[in-house]
Amino acid sequence: MAGAEWKSLEECLEKHLPLPDLQEVKRVLYGKELRKLDLPREAFEAASREDFELQGYAFEAAEEQLRRPRIVHVSALHRRIKAIVEVAAMCGVNIICFQEAWTMPFAFCTREKLPWTEFAESAEDGPTTRFCQKLAKNHDMVVVSPILERDSEHGDVLWNTAVVISNSGAVLGKTRKNHIPRVGDFNESTYYMEGNLGHPVFQTQFGRIAVNICYGRHHPLNWLMYSINGAEIIFNPSATIGALSESLWPIEARNAAIANHCFTCAINRVGTEHFPNEFTSGDGKKAHQDFGYFYGSSYVAAPDSSRTPGLSRSRDGLLVAKLDLNLCQQVNDVWNFKMTGRYEMYARELAEAVKSNYSPTIVKE
Amino acid sequence: MAGAEWKSLEECLEKHLPLPDLQEVKRVLYGKELRKLDLPREAFEAASREDFELQGYAFEAAEEQLRRPRIVHVSALHRRIKAIVEVAAMCGVNIICFQEAWTMPFAFCTREKLPWTEFAESAEDGPTTRFCQKLAKNHDMVVVSPILERDSEHGDVLWNTAVVISNSGAVLGKTRKNHIPRVGDFNESTYYMEGNLGHPVFQTQFGRIAVNICYGRHHPLNWLMYSINGAEIIFNPSATIGALSESLWPIEARNAAIANHCFTCAINRVGTEHFPNEFTSGDGKKAHQDFGYFYGSSYVAAPDSSRTPGLSRSRDGLLVAKLDLNLCQQVNDVWNFKMTGRYEMYARELAEAVKSNYSPTIVKE
Repeated sequence: MAGAEWKSLEECLEKHLPLPDLQEVKRVLYGKELRKLDLPREAFEAASREDFELQGYAFEAAEEQLRRPRIVHVSALHRRIKAIVEVAAMCGVNIICFQEAWTMPFAFCTREKLPWTEFAESAEDGPTTRFCQKLAKNHDMVVVSPILERDSEHGDVLWNTAVVISNSGAVLGKTRKNHIPRVGDFNESTYYMEGNLGHPVFQTQFGRIAVNICYGRHHPLNWLMYSINGAEIIFNPSATIGALSESLWPIEARNAAIANHCFTCAINRVGTEHFPNEFTSGDGKKAHQDFGYFYGSSYVAAPDSSRTPGLSRSRDGLLVAKLDLNLCQQVNDVWNFKMTGRYEMYARELAEAVKSNYSPTIVKE
Repeated sequence: MAGAEWKSLEECLEKHLPLPDLQEVKRVLYGKELRKLDLPREAFEAASREDFELQGYAFEAAEEQLRRPRIVHVSALHRRIKAIVEVAAMCGVNIICFQEAWTMPFAFCTREKLPWTEFAESAEDGPTTRFCQKLAKNHDMVVVSPILERDSEHGDVLWNTAVVISNSGAVLGKTRKNHIPRVGDFNESTYYMEGNLGHPVFQTQFGRIAVNICYGRHHPLNWLMYSINGAEIIFNPSATIGALSESLWPIEARNAAIANHCFTCAINRVGTEHFPNEFTSGDGKKAHQDFGYFYGSSYVAAPDSSRTPGLSRSRDGLLVAKLDLNLCQQVNDVWNFKMTGRYEMYARELAEAVKSNYSPTIVKE
């Protein structure tokens, strides 16, 4: 049963649990129940023809007296971008985020520079950005395009970058992966280092968004700073495999949505990638040509702790979520973690803690 | 089905899922499978006689060349302290943590000062601390005793405090609730304010422990500072109800264990508490004399993302966990979030962000 053939947690629960139990399990594990979106028939037909999964859910907020609902459709997807973006457009999607380094295999395990660094390109006017600008303009859709960036203006340094393209087709800006893993097959610092652009938030026509790339999801402070800068939706384009992180996956992005009163979108690849030359993984095992399967399971989480089911663990997919962004402020006004957050104390404590002569507060008998 | 009568998530899954599916569901939701502890027969008999639930699980670590396993038995419990502590002793427990404000009903919803503030007592030599010192010494057990503290030496101020008592019977110290809720029935700032003792960690004979009281679990920085100060186990004694937080409960303490490479113990009350005078909850509803049921579901989570099942949602219980603390460093050395945490950058960013003239980093078209 282990491996990519187990389709999804949700399918398994729905198949076996009696309805009243299923409702309780979902209440505890998934928060309030989401309404399924009534997506157009031609979208499902196109998805079936192109052989990818399509799911849609609505996150609703209470009606307010002063503000109208601030509905935005976001989506998270895996690959085969153009066909999938067209289906997203049929579904009325406003903001779409692709997976991490979507133009290339996740080859950083190989530690080979060539041919993989040939995928690196300019964030501002590389072929991928130009391609995405056309998509964005044609479909009136904000496109978040995570790529391997080559920064020719600064000594040809490579970065793990997400380009944010406005629905007008203009490049709104870029943001870089702030935390770089050194774990198992993911020692990516062979190729690029920690991002130097801080925590920018992008004001789009549909809401304020930020991009926490991959390994940054393990760092609660990374989510927090995007939230402090005003992000209402934080995308987390990732590439992560079953053996390493599958039991962390349902926890981290969801905790971030709760802790920061915002929406988060956790996006992962599917499938297994085979490389021409063998490599080792720092785990004492024999050299091999793949390092396991990316388990997909992309989902969207809300500030009230509700979440969508995950997309398939093995098939390409498009997850459409209709968010009422008013929910962020509504949940904030109930819980208000920023009001009770005491950031001044933590700024001070962290500034002390990073000093080389810091002495931890340990009470001994 | 809604309400306290639904026994537990785990019981429901085990009853209905075929074994291969159950194993996959548990792998994704609970991490690696834990071994059940072989607790003594007389412990189960005593638990049955006293009518509380008893469960035990082992968290194991890999064998190392230089360090022996650092086994510690911890437990989390609900109430009826003495009888339960005796059963804990039979089970070889080394560190025990009671629930938040365990000596009193969670009466802060009433906003009445009397009679409730009569429960407040000295952390250093109040009757509860003296009672716990005897328990600690008799059973060679570290006792964490969360109480309502009256600080007579500083103007009779009240605090939400946990007293840490060494297995020698000596009071090792105290720690205070750092984040105070102002939500629904939990506007506790009527009684006590944010703790002023920072993030102390207590070096016990069995390992380094810290106490993140209740609402602090929603604040990732609170967990982080205890971890930076060296905590290997962070207890989270809480009092929280179904309607407010049940779908957050399985996420937050577990995310903290993952993010900080430590163990966390999430502890909640069970049952419904009725108060003599009616009160309102700031939710537009009629006055009432209880605010819903505490859903128990106490659990222990490990740095490798594994966790125990939850205790019952409705019965008193004692959860015994056998932890090999070597797991903390082992997981740290694989993932190493502190190495990649960039705390210097965050100390700087937070110090800026709290200034009244801070301008968030927002990119506009």
